[in-house]
Amino acid sequence: MSYILIAGVVVLVVVAYMLGKRSTNDHVNSCVDKHKPKVVSTVDIEDLSDATAFCRCWKSGKFPYCDGSHNKHNKGCGDNVGPLLLNRRS
Amino acid sequence: MSYILIAGVVVLVVVAYMLGKRSTNDHVNSCVDKHKPKVVSTVDIEDLSDATAFCRCWKSGKFPYCDGSHNKHNKGCGDNVGPLLLNRRS
Repeated sequence: MSYILIAGVVVLVVVAYMLGKRSTNDHVNSCVDKHKPKVVSTVDIEDLSDATAFCRCWKSGKFPYCDGSHNKHNKGCGDNVGPLLLNRRS
Repeated sequence: MSYILIAGVVVLVVVAYMLGKRSTNDHVNSCVDKHKPKVVSTVDIEDLSDATAFCRCWKSGKFPYCDGSHNKHNKGCGDNVGPLLLNRRS
């Protein structure tokens, strides 16, 4: 009887763990324009300065431009994301 | 005695759920160059074609360029990410 009880508890714990895992979704974007179905940013090449950094961590306060927020994000969770840099050759 | 047992099981289940939740980290990048401390992509403006789409979902097989993988990603988890489009004015 006690074996059945232990087995039941183990199953419950494993199921709870799996449910916990599933509950965290895999969103890349947690904050930018979440009301939009898809966040596409369009920039004209002619409007680029000699060096422009674009955000790819979706945490920038200047989105779609980079404000360095990826550093805090990387430090916080061990990720390794960085911006896209567009440079004009000198 | 049975109350203590039930309370113990409930605590175990809650702890397992929380551990499951914590185990899923908040990485934005799950696959691109994970051996690098930071993935920064640099592109010269002179090398851009008239219309270039850059990946921001970190799932593209043509990273740093977009291959449409954000659509599968969005559908899979309900996210709303899209590419950065750089266009030359005609």
